[in-house]
Amino acid sequence: MAKEKKVEQITDMEVDFAQWFTDVCIKAELVDYSGVKGLFILRPYGYAIWEAIQNYLDKRFKELGHDNVSMPLLIPESLLQKEKDHVEGFAPECAWVTMGGSEPLEERLCVRPTSETLFCDHWSHVVHSWRDLPCKYNQWCSVLRWEKTTRPFLRGREFLWQEGHTIHATKEEAMEETEQMLEVYADCLENLLAMPVVKGCKTEKEKFAGAERTYTVECMMKDHKALQSGTSHYFGDGFCRAFNITFADRNNQQSYPHQTSWGMSTRTIGGLIMTHGDNNGLVLPPHVAPIQVVVVPVAQHKPGVLEKAAEVYTALKSAGVRVKMDDSDNSLGWKCAQYEMKGVPLRIELGPRDIENGVCVAVRRDNFEKTTVQLNTLAEAVPALLEQVQQGLYDRAKRNLDEHTRDCATMEDVKRFIETEGGFARTKWCGDLACELKMKEDAGVSSRCMPLAQSGTKGKCVCCGKEAATDIFWGVAY
Amino acid sequence: MAKEKKVEQITDMEVDFAQWFTDVCIKAELVDYSGVKGLFILRPYGYAIWEAIQNYLDKRFKELGHDNVSMPLLIPESLLQKEKDHVEGFAPECAWVTMGGSEPLEERLCVRPTSETLFCDHWSHVVHSWRDLPCKYNQWCSVLRWEKTTRPFLRGREFLWQEGHTIHATKEEAMEETEQMLEVYADCLENLLAMPVVKGCKTEKEKFAGAERTYTVECMMKDHKALQSGTSHYFGDGFCRAFNITFADRNNQQSYPHQTSWGMSTRTIGGLIMTHGDNNGLVLPPHVAPIQVVVVPVAQHKPGVLEKAAEVYTALKSAGVRVKMDDSDNSLGWKCAQYEMKGVPLRIELGPRDIENGVCVAVRRDNFEKTTVQLNTLAEAVPALLEQVQQGLYDRAKRNLDEHTRDCATMEDVKRFIETEGGFARTKWCGDLACELKMKEDAGVSSRCMPLAQSGTKGKCVCCGKEAATDIFWGVAY
Repeated sequence: MAKEKKVEQITDMEVDFAQWFTDVCIKAELVDYSGVKGLFILRPYGYAIWEAIQNYLDKRFKELGHDNVSMPLLIPESLLQKEKDHVEGFAPECAWVTMGGSEPLEERLCVRPTSETLFCDHWSHVVHSWRDLPCKYNQWCSVLRWEKTTRPFLRGREFLWQEGHTIHATKEEAMEETEQMLEVYADCLENLLAMPVVKGCKTEKEKFAGAERTYTVECMMKDHKALQSGTSHYFGDGFCRAFNITFADRNNQQSYPHQTSWGMSTRTIGGLIMTHGDNNGLVLPPHVAPIQVVVVPVAQHKPGVLEKAAEVYTALKSAGVRVKMDDSDNSLGWKCAQYEMKGVPLRIELGPRDIENGVCVAVRRDNFEKTTVQLNTLAEAVPALLEQVQQGLYDRAKRNLDEHTRDCATMEDVKRFIETEGGFARTKWCGDLACELKMKEDAGVSSRCMPLAQSGTKGKCVCCGKEAATDIFWGVAY
Repeated sequence: MAKEKKVEQITDMEVDFAQWFTDVCIKAELVDYSGVKGLFILRPYGYAIWEAIQNYLDKRFKELGHDNVSMPLLIPESLLQKEKDHVEGFAPECAWVTMGGSEPLEERLCVRPTSETLFCDHWSHVVHSWRDLPCKYNQWCSVLRWEKTTRPFLRGREFLWQEGHTIHATKEEAMEETEQMLEVYADCLENLLAMPVVKGCKTEKEKFAGAERTYTVECMMKDHKALQSGTSHYFGDGFCRAFNITFADRNNQQSYPHQTSWGMSTRTIGGLIMTHGDNNGLVLPPHVAPIQVVVVPVAQHKPGVLEKAAEVYTALKSAGVRVKMDDSDNSLGWKCAQYEMKGVPLRIELGPRDIENGVCVAVRRDNFEKTTVQLNTLAEAVPALLEQVQQGLYDRAKRNLDEHTRDCATMEDVKRFIETEGGFARTKWCGDLACELKMKEDAGVSSRCMPLAQSGTKGKCVCCGKEAATDIFWGVAY
């Protein structure tokens, strides 16, 4: 007998977007709260999404010649303090280890908020000559930042990420690396996660603590807010000077290397939820979905149904599809709602009448379209449908980005746009910090980036009216 | 012009085994010291070995139905205290976070030394019915244990590991899981790492804090000391009672699940070094070697040598061999010593005369045997040679284990054996803690395990002389 379990409702996103987001995180079984505020548990389904992102990026990193390493979890306070701008940026949000066993430590140790200082300390031991360069390292780990307000994925006191750290013999090579890794993030967001991006440069105010230049990929969520989804930094030789990392160049002159770092985190999963999700729950692009297709037998007690469903499962598995069979005794209604909540891109239903007709019905998660598929064409038809879902999700997100990016000439324009519909306001900017601060104060927006794709035109700074050449995006950000 | 770099010497293992070990760790570029005692940096070559172990185990875990998750880094003190035996075992070596930013924390948080308490706390939220069982979880992470003395790989205040945690509806199922995971470790050690094992059960004294039973795989190092290389624990329902994890069984009765955990760590890399290494450095079994073959052109300035070497490289790469080409301007002598230090299983030398004869020379790292290989048979001959190296290393390690495992009848026998040559003393044991403690005091040995392969004979306890049926292994352990 079918067991009637109730699928719990989630808040509508139009009613309360923040609550909708939290509901999806919990009900889709992505995360659980732990006993410590801001430290979240990534459950199997949430972690499987992170593993898909890891696999995609790790393969690209290695193809581009990066090596994975493991740096210590703890940073002595004196080491963190070696680069002045860096420590100012991070010290206020460090968690400190002060006791080892029952003994107080001589020097307190911070749990890494990021590892530039550790990499630099290591390089100061092992780099001697141009032959040792470039060092192109990456590590997968978690970091701690003691934030006041926390939310699953978006702002945790602990989050998982990768941090790439490299040093190079020349500025040109380091700049090339910085830009290349931004492209890797853009590619991952657009092609794996179906999240269109705006690539750009951060302002002086918004750049990473200690960096000379910070590149970013910015995405737009369904509520038209911005999510910074990956950053890549060029440091010049500032840290290398502070840590006394030198190398003998080909002419045997001592020089300082040029440094980069770049990171992407589980925050991206928050972005994935807010880019594609709907009032039925999570919606996953097939490329990143742990389960791409769920097979749900209809009237499974009738003779032949489970056997045929098993054949469908096997055919799809052989075709390389990540497929799950649910022949449990839960009701059909519960199963449908459950896999919708979990965002499985395609549900295949198969009942006695379908079997008679040699077909099954494929239901798309993104738009609920039903397609009748001949059973003998499954191995081609289902992968093709999955590609349509992937493209459909990207296109929808791209429309959201395009339709809510607005050229604004004045502060009033920006205010009205942000207050009425929200999105990215694109303006000219003179480059002054004073104008950037005034935008925050008067229009409530922060600078998102100066896009790499500049228009090349001139105009008036949105704030002070001075002639300005730089295009810049403003928005309300997570 | 060839640059003459000197390959630094390492201490002979016969002179000072501990110093030899440290030298290999550093000179083979596996690790670097960090600014905090006991926290080591895993460099690219060391981490690549860990990645090979991770890939092997992770695939097996998933095949057996385990899901990866991520639990928090920090455990509130009150949570750690919930299971009495467990906290007694771990509290003395916890590192404590007491400050977040500039504020003292209300409750101090320990950096996880192991995560049983975190998994149990999570399960108490999400497990309700027999339908939710089993939960078979694993995580890859690092843990902290504030040890007094530390050594690379063997004893760190931080180490990388995987920790598997599962709960099951019945004791039988949990016991089966515990034993199955021990087999997975034994398989990984023997087939990936060419390290023969003794599988067994720990005594009451040596079992994991809070466990009902601990299984272990014990390996013998070249100095005849023991290395515990993986453990698998059965907990009964002790933690589940302490954390109030209950489920409704099929008859709707509330029951406590039965729990297991199991772990393997970067310590295994220490074991790999001490099982196969020699006075020229590291020796890696081909199955785990990041570089299986290095191609070294001889007289590479002569016409045609580099071109032919590139062909050899490509042929091996196409055959699925992890191959590296070294056509740098370092001298041939330096290259040979360098790749010997790094333990690359096979070096292929190729000079003008070889090319004339359509051959190359393959030099085995394990026994320095040279084989002339026809260039047109590379794709079959080299993988076959690699398999011979793998088997050769296993066989040599197995001989070491067998030849230094000795049946002993009395305490005097054990003492003499341990003092003169060292190894595993196999005896009968009555099961009393008093005898186990006396063995430590008088013969300086700890119990390694009661082997799964029991002889079935009876005899006298090695210590008290009472009749005893249990076979047990004693040794000096890392």
